[in-house]
Amino acid sequence: MSETPDSAVRTYIDSHRAAFLDDLAEWLRIPSVSAQPERAGDVRRSADWLAAKLQETGFPTAEVWPTAGAPAVFAEWPSDDPQAPTVLVYGHHDVQPAAREDGWHSDPFEPVIRDGRLYARGAADDKGQVFFHTLGVRAHLAATGRTAPAVHLKLLIEGEEESGSPNFRTLVEQHADRLAADAVIVSDTGMWSADTPTVCTGMRGLAECEITLYGPEQDIHSGSFGGAVPNPATAAAGLVAALHDEHARVAIPGFYDGVVDLTDRERELFAELPFDEERWLRTARSTATFGEAGHSTLERIWARPTAEVNGIGGGYQGPGSKTIIPSSAMVKLSFRLVAGQDPDHIEKVVRAWAADALPAGIRHEITFGSATRPCLTPLDHPALQSVVRAMGRAFQQPVRFTREGGSGPAADLQEVLGVPVLFLGISIPSDGWHAPNEKVELDLLLKGVETAAYLWDDLGENRHDAD
Amino acid sequence: MSETPDSAVRTYIDSHRAAFLDDLAEWLRIPSVSAQPERAGDVRRSADWLAAKLQETGFPTAEVWPTAGAPAVFAEWPSDDPQAPTVLVYGHHDVQPAAREDGWHSDPFEPVIRDGRLYARGAADDKGQVFFHTLGVRAHLAATGRTAPAVHLKLLIEGEEESGSPNFRTLVEQHADRLAADAVIVSDTGMWSADTPTVCTGMRGLAECEITLYGPEQDIHSGSFGGAVPNPATAAAGLVAALHDEHARVAIPGFYDGVVDLTDRERELFAELPFDEERWLRTARSTATFGEAGHSTLERIWARPTAEVNGIGGGYQGPGSKTIIPSSAMVKLSFRLVAGQDPDHIEKVVRAWAADALPAGIRHEITFGSATRPCLTPLDHPALQSVVRAMGRAFQQPVRFTREGGSGPAADLQEVLGVPVLFLGISIPSDGWHAPNEKVELDLLLKGVETAAYLWDDLGENRHDAD
Repeated sequence: MSETPDSAVRTYIDSHRAAFLDDLAEWLRIPSVSAQPERAGDVRRSADWLAAKLQETGFPTAEVWPTAGAPAVFAEWPSDDPQAPTVLVYGHHDVQPAAREDGWHSDPFEPVIRDGRLYARGAADDKGQVFFHTLGVRAHLAATGRTAPAVHLKLLIEGEEESGSPNFRTLVEQHADRLAADAVIVSDTGMWSADTPTVCTGMRGLAECEITLYGPEQDIHSGSFGGAVPNPATAAAGLVAALHDEHARVAIPGFYDGVVDLTDRERELFAELPFDEERWLRTARSTATFGEAGHSTLERIWARPTAEVNGIGGGYQGPGSKTIIPSSAMVKLSFRLVAGQDPDHIEKVVRAWAADALPAGIRHEITFGSATRPCLTPLDHPALQSVVRAMGRAFQQPVRFTREGGSGPAADLQEVLGVPVLFLGISIPSDGWHAPNEKVELDLLLKGVETAAYLWDDLGENRHDAD
Repeated sequence: MSETPDSAVRTYIDSHRAAFLDDLAEWLRIPSVSAQPERAGDVRRSADWLAAKLQETGFPTAEVWPTAGAPAVFAEWPSDDPQAPTVLVYGHHDVQPAAREDGWHSDPFEPVIRDGRLYARGAADDKGQVFFHTLGVRAHLAATGRTAPAVHLKLLIEGEEESGSPNFRTLVEQHADRLAADAVIVSDTGMWSADTPTVCTGMRGLAECEITLYGPEQDIHSGSFGGAVPNPATAAAGLVAALHDEHARVAIPGFYDGVVDLTDRERELFAELPFDEERWLRTARSTATFGEAGHSTLERIWARPTAEVNGIGGGYQGPGSKTIIPSSAMVKLSFRLVAGQDPDHIEKVVRAWAADALPAGIRHEITFGSATRPCLTPLDHPALQSVVRAMGRAFQQPVRFTREGGSGPAADLQEVLGVPVLFLGISIPSDGWHAPNEKVELDLLLKGVETAAYLWDDLGENRHDAD
């Protein structure tokens, strides 16, 4: 009985499983913590290790790209079909800090397998999810008898994601020619749960600002002057209170301009997910949900824009009391953006709103940080359909759709390269990203390998690169 | 030509002026800074010096009263008329910190006279205004030929006013019998200006609270959760914004219960004062007035209650940004109270309002500090009329009325002793209380001496102590 393509992929993976895990463990032993300056050498070592491993895997090109901070790794394996689509995989090789005393049951940089789980810092975020692409492309070749992938395959694995990717956009702009692709596959997200494989179809964008409000030139006595001059802390609170209307909708005029609302189909798909609000609240460490009227919790975090106060301060914050009208106050605001919203427009409307909202006698300064655009792949996008088919073959289950509430450097790829961003991740919420005892489920990790193997085949077969 | 009583007072003051100023200078050289632990010995020395000086002045009783902190001085000079009313003068012998390098043109504890002004820390606040009572009572005796004052005269000069009078109420309660009086005269305030002698008729009270709001058990990611759980910083801002309505009136239900509104006569009297708003704004270091609709600036600071934010804080306040929903936030609020308002009632209505104003999922804690009651002397109070007459004789000008926006320990005397509080102060706004180069105008200081001399006579003659 001849093998089906799928069973050939599985057979290949099974026979290479042990070596694959050994290699991954070797990489996980390198403590590539980008946030710790004393680990800079380890981050470089991690990049060198990965580049060497990708060459060993068969990538004709694998280079370490320096940045002003930590290095990235770029690899390329052209298809032998010049007409094949080009796919760029994004991930990162740096990890969050981790120390045994934070509550780890074993050394975070000495991987151990227990009960089908591989425990180590970076196991899920993101080394494991980067690494499944090495075995994935080999399984793809083995099962199809190819000597080169069915797509022009590129990898860009950055080294500063856990430090906010400060040099990533510059890097992408600098190498835009070599990074050119028809689609980006981000392998740095997760799925709904082990039982519910999902594809993420978008991330929210982000705009951030800080507003400082100035009242009296110095703190003044609240007895001598209270009630007769404007108080900048009151004005700051007033601004924050004016962010939302009584339906918890953002009340800044123009804020919703261009917002792509959820389709009925998307709302149905969200509603089909086995969402347990009590459980979600525990994850959110909160006791009640709250948000924009007319939307479910999942819609609120995935598909609706927000205005959130990240910090507020003014006046006396020490013990006891001090009867002053403070001379200044500040608020730090962040806005999560969804498809159709433009950070430049948000900056414009927020500036106009703030200027308009403040009383006479309160001067203000407003500064915006760097912004991240939202990304969203339409459900009917052919490349997304390829991801869904590949994942369905690997998981042998229907694949559902999620989004990400957060924002990431993927948006830079979308924007600079001008291509759609797709997501392929197999991590689950219990994997403990950024927490002690981070792990990856081995079964799911190997499903990731399998999905990658099918995906290059599917994308190569279904030439939708010109879409 | 025989002397009038007034010219006799003036003659006596003129002939004792030099010794009086020498004595005052000696006292001012003692750096009795209650806020500086290393000055505790100086504060004790100041009390001892004053008690000795009062005995030398003729007070049969002059004692240093210890407290849990710095000592107070109590002195008593009974009238020879047992039916005479009893008057208790309040002041303080401690001073604000001062150092040459703060911008003083001369050593703050080495008094100098320049251009008719005596410069030293404490010259106006409050040693100068305490000390005019020593020469005042002697002038009163000399001009009237008495051997004892026309009133039973008591002095209570505390040593911790500049540190918030932490032990004052206990001291008053402890010695309530010996402090018993028909009226209190507070000599720790000022007048409108050198050209406009005024009597202060009341001070606002004060209630203070701190409200801490708790949301998620720890800071959570504003991307993953933003828009779907309540944010305690937003809730804190909402509370503050809900403090006032659109007319800048305090919007806490029940807050205005019992408020004694200004009479038309009082509003007229305030309006007669030569108020220069531009100048006042410079003093307030502010660029615009703001406050309760329907009231002038003077009405707002003197006669209307307020709700003021003294501090607000929550979330990330460092440089740059941090995309979190903070786990907690806090606000420090203070309420200035006017006649008719009761701090216990204010606490009750503020607690009810806060509990009612917060969304589900936000837990809060609220703590109240010690409160100060407002005090107000009706314009037609006979003792107030005595003060006005005495001041009019000294200044030979019409005396107008002011109030104080701040709050002070005088309220403790009013409350514990159950007597009206009157104010006799000759300091003017330019005297620089708490600032470098504090001074007192010598002309005004001697008018204070003169006013005190007439006041004891007037109060003794006009037996309104039973009012």
